[in-house]
Amino acid sequence: MFSVHKQSGEFLYQQVIDLICQQIGSGALSPGDKLPSLRHLSSELTVSIPTVRQAYLELERQGQIVAREKSGYFIQDKQNNPLVSIGCRTCRPVEVRCRNLIERIYDAIHSPGVLPFGIANPCMALPATKTLNRTMKRVMARAEERTLGYAHTIGDLGLRRQLSYRYLNHGLSVNPDEILITNGAQEALALALKSVASEGDVIAVESPAYHGLLELIESLGMLALELETCPVSGVSLEALDKALRRHQVAACMFSSSLSNPLGCVSSNQHRQAMVELLESYSVPLIEDDVYGDLIYAGPRPHPAQYYSRKGLVLTCSSFSKTVAPGYRIGWLLAGSAFRTAHKLKRSISCSSGLLQQMTLTDFLASGDYDRHLKRLLPVLKYNAQRMSAAISRYFPKQTGISQPGGGSVLWLQLPRKVDSVLLFQQAIEQDISILPGTVFSAGRRYKNHIRLSYGHPWSDNIDAGLSKLAELVHRQLTDNPD
Amino acid sequence: MFSVHKQSGEFLYQQVIDLICQQIGSGALSPGDKLPSLRHLSSELTVSIPTVRQAYLELERQGQIVAREKSGYFIQDKQNNPLVSIGCRTCRPVEVRCRNLIERIYDAIHSPGVLPFGIANPCMALPATKTLNRTMKRVMARAEERTLGYAHTIGDLGLRRQLSYRYLNHGLSVNPDEILITNGAQEALALALKSVASEGDVIAVESPAYHGLLELIESLGMLALELETCPVSGVSLEALDKALRRHQVAACMFSSSLSNPLGCVSSNQHRQAMVELLESYSVPLIEDDVYGDLIYAGPRPHPAQYYSRKGLVLTCSSFSKTVAPGYRIGWLLAGSAFRTAHKLKRSISCSSGLLQQMTLTDFLASGDYDRHLKRLLPVLKYNAQRMSAAISRYFPKQTGISQPGGGSVLWLQLPRKVDSVLLFQQAIEQDISILPGTVFSAGRRYKNHIRLSYGHPWSDNIDAGLSKLAELVHRQLTDNPD
Repeated sequence: MFSVHKQSGEFLYQQVIDLICQQIGSGALSPGDKLPSLRHLSSELTVSIPTVRQAYLELERQGQIVAREKSGYFIQDKQNNPLVSIGCRTCRPVEVRCRNLIERIYDAIHSPGVLPFGIANPCMALPATKTLNRTMKRVMARAEERTLGYAHTIGDLGLRRQLSYRYLNHGLSVNPDEILITNGAQEALALALKSVASEGDVIAVESPAYHGLLELIESLGMLALELETCPVSGVSLEALDKALRRHQVAACMFSSSLSNPLGCVSSNQHRQAMVELLESYSVPLIEDDVYGDLIYAGPRPHPAQYYSRKGLVLTCSSFSKTVAPGYRIGWLLAGSAFRTAHKLKRSISCSSGLLQQMTLTDFLASGDYDRHLKRLLPVLKYNAQRMSAAISRYFPKQTGISQPGGGSVLWLQLPRKVDSVLLFQQAIEQDISILPGTVFSAGRRYKNHIRLSYGHPWSDNIDAGLSKLAELVHRQLTDNPD
Repeated sequence: MFSVHKQSGEFLYQQVIDLICQQIGSGALSPGDKLPSLRHLSSELTVSIPTVRQAYLELERQGQIVAREKSGYFIQDKQNNPLVSIGCRTCRPVEVRCRNLIERIYDAIHSPGVLPFGIANPCMALPATKTLNRTMKRVMARAEERTLGYAHTIGDLGLRRQLSYRYLNHGLSVNPDEILITNGAQEALALALKSVASEGDVIAVESPAYHGLLELIESLGMLALELETCPVSGVSLEALDKALRRHQVAACMFSSSLSNPLGCVSSNQHRQAMVELLESYSVPLIEDDVYGDLIYAGPRPHPAQYYSRKGLVLTCSSFSKTVAPGYRIGWLLAGSAFRTAHKLKRSISCSSGLLQQMTLTDFLASGDYDRHLKRLLPVLKYNAQRMSAAISRYFPKQTGISQPGGGSVLWLQLPRKVDSVLLFQQAIEQDISILPGTVFSAGRRYKNHIRLSYGHPWSDNIDAGLSKLAELVHRQLTDNPD
C-alpha cells in the first residue's frame, strides 16, 4: 500500500505524514479506515517505529486520525467529503502569467450585488465597524492636526509597540524598531521579496499558492517553483529539500499559518524543520502570516520566525483579514533585511496612513481587538461548517472539500471534467463570484478546483447561491458526459 | 555679453531665456539692469527679432523682467537677493547613492520639537483638519461597513470622477477609468517608473531634483542623468535635446509645475516643446505634478499631458501637499501605460485606503477643497515673502534665494565655502531641521545649497530659527576664512 519515494533520512516522519495524506486525498484511505500498526508500517517503509509514531501523533494532533484504545489508529470519521488530494508534483521553475485572468475576475467579483464567494474577507463575517469608528473619532478629537500629517516612514511607534507585545504572546521577541508598517500585507510581501531577491530569481511557493503571491512574482519578473503541499501538514519538506538541491532558489514564500487556499496550519515541528533546512542553505523564507490570528482549530503555533537563527525569516501580516481591509495597514518583520526593506518602503510609498495606525493602536491597547477576535473566530468556524455541509448536500459526490484550520476559505476539488474558468463565467452571469483554481498556480494546475469564501454572515441567500453553483457543476457534467 | 552654445534651430527662444537666466544667476545681470534691445540681441545671437521678443515676453510673463514704456526691458527689481544660479551642466548618467544620508536626515527632522524647515508640508500652513474630520465622520455614518472593506484596486469611482472634473478645468480631458488611485504621489511615481523603465535604464531628471525621485531611481537600480535646469523656465530643452541624442534615455521625470526644490513653473510653450521633443524620440515623461494646485504666482499652465499626442506622458499627484499627507491618497494618469501600472499596483499594494478616498470625494464635491486652496495659497505666498525677507536680513549678502511660483520651499545658494551637510548637523543640534543640497543630486552637487520649507504658520519662533541658522552659516565662514 505505501512506498517511500526517497530516504533522505532527515524528514522521514514528515514523509510518512505526506504519504498518508496522499492516500486520504486519493481515496485509498477513507474515513473510518484503520491505519497499519506502528510495527507493520515501520517494516513496510523501512523506517523506525518512533518515526511512524511521531507521524501518527502529529496526524492525531491535526485531527486527521484518531486513536482508539486497544484498536490502533483510524482515519477520522468526518461529516465532510474527503480531503482534497495533492494536485502537484514539484517541477521546474516557470514564468507566472496569471495577471490577465485575475484582472477579469477582479472586475467581475467586485461588482455590487454579486454573491462574494470569490473574495476572502473574513472580518466581514462580523464587522467591527462601530467600535473602530468610535475609536477613530476619539483619535481625531485627541490628536487633531497630527492625524493629517506624515507618519514616520517606519510607522507609528505606538502601533509598533502594540505589535511587539502581541508577538511576545506568540513566543517571538521582536523590538518595535524591527517592525515596519506597510500598506497592507501585500506591500509587506512586495518589500520583503524585493529585499531578498532580484529579477529572474527562482521563488519557491506552496502549491496551490495564493494568487497575490504569484502576481507579485510575475510583476517583479521572477520565476515560481511550485512545491507539493499537503492539505494537512503544509509544504512537503521532502519536496523543499529536493528543490533546494536542484535549483538555485533565491527565496521561499509560504503561509505556515493557514495557507491560502488550502487552509492548513503546519505544526511547530514542521516549522522548525523547515526553517532549519532553509537556513542551512541560507535561503530566506517570507512568511505570509496574514491569517495567523484567524486559526480556530487548536492553539496557534509559533511564528516560523521563532525558529530562525540567522535572521533569514521575514514575516508579513496585516489587519486586512481581521478588522479593516480598507485601512491598508500591514507590517513586516524583515529580520536581517530590515534596513533594505525600510529604504525600499520609503522610496516606493513614503509612509502609511497615520490616522488608521493611531486608531488601530488604540483598538489593540484597549483590548477591543482581542474581544473582536474572540467573537469572530466562532462565527468563521460556524460558517465553515454550514458551507461544508451545504456543499456536501448540493455538489457531486466526488467533490473534495478542504478542512481549514481557520480563516475564511474552502478549497474544492471538483470532478476532473469540470472547467473552473468556465464555471466562473457561468456563475458570474448569475451574480455569484468564485475563484477558479487556475489562478492559484503558475503552471496551469487546478483546472477543476475552485476557492469559495465563507467570510460573510451565513444566510439563506448564501445557501441558495451554493445550490445554484452546484447546479452549474452538475450541468457541466451532464453536458459533457464520459 | 551673450553667446549661443548651439544653434539647434528648434528651441532658440528657449535658449535665449536660458542664457538670460544664467546671466541673472551668475550676477552678470542685476535687478534694475537694462536688457539689450530686441534688435541688438537678435544681431548678437544671430537669431530673429521675433525669437528674442518671444523670449522677453515669456520672461515678462514669469515676472523676471519688466517692460518700461519707451525704455525697453529691465531685470525685475526684487527685494530678494538674486536668483540662484544654475549649478549643473548635463553630464553622464550616474548611479544614485543618496539613501543612507537621507535616512539619517529623516530620523533627525522627524524628531518632535524640531523646527521643521526640512519638511515640505505646505498644508500645515493652514490645516483643513476640522472640515476634513467633519467630512470623514459624515462618511462613516453614511457608509458604515463599506468604509472598512477593500476599495477597488483602481480606486473609488467617486474620487476618480471628481479628479476627472478637475482636470477638465485645467484643459485635460481624462476619463475616470484612466485614473489610478495610489498610496500618495510617491507610489504613483514608483508605479509609473516601473511601468516604463527597467533596471539599469537611464532616467533623466532636473537638476537639482527632488530627493524622493533620486531615492526611487536608486531603489529600482536605474541611473540618473541630471539635466541643467533654469530656476525660471524649467529644464533646459537644449540640454534635454542633447541628452536624448547622446544617451539611451528610457524616461524623464520632471516637475513642470513647481519643481522641487527650485520652485519654477514652466510655461505652456515650454511644456509643449518639451513633450513634442520627447514624443519625437518616443521617450515617456513622468510628471511629478504634486504641487500643481499650489501655484500662487500667476495662472496654472496646462498639465504637460495636455500636449501629449502619443500617450507617453504620465502624471503623478496626490493630496499630500494640499490637505492631508497622512491620508496617503495620490493618483496616476498613466496614459498608454495604464494597464501595466494598474496590474503593478494590484500586485505591490492591492488597493488604497477607502475611507480616505470617500472622505476626499466629499471634500472635493462640496467645494471645500477649492475653498481651502483659496485660503491656503495667500498664506503660503505670505510665508514665502516673510522667509525671503528674513533670509535677506540674516544671511550673508552673497546668498542666492529662489523665487518659487508656489509651493512651500525656498532653495538657497550659500557662499561656496559653506558645507551644507555640516550645517545640517550643526542646525539639528539646535533643534532646527534643514535639507542639505547634496540630497537633491545624484552627482554630489549642491554642497553649498540648502532647502528650507515655509509650509508652517509664520511665527517669531520661525524668524528666530532663521536667525540662528544664519549665525551658523556666518560661523562656518569665520571658522574657515579665505
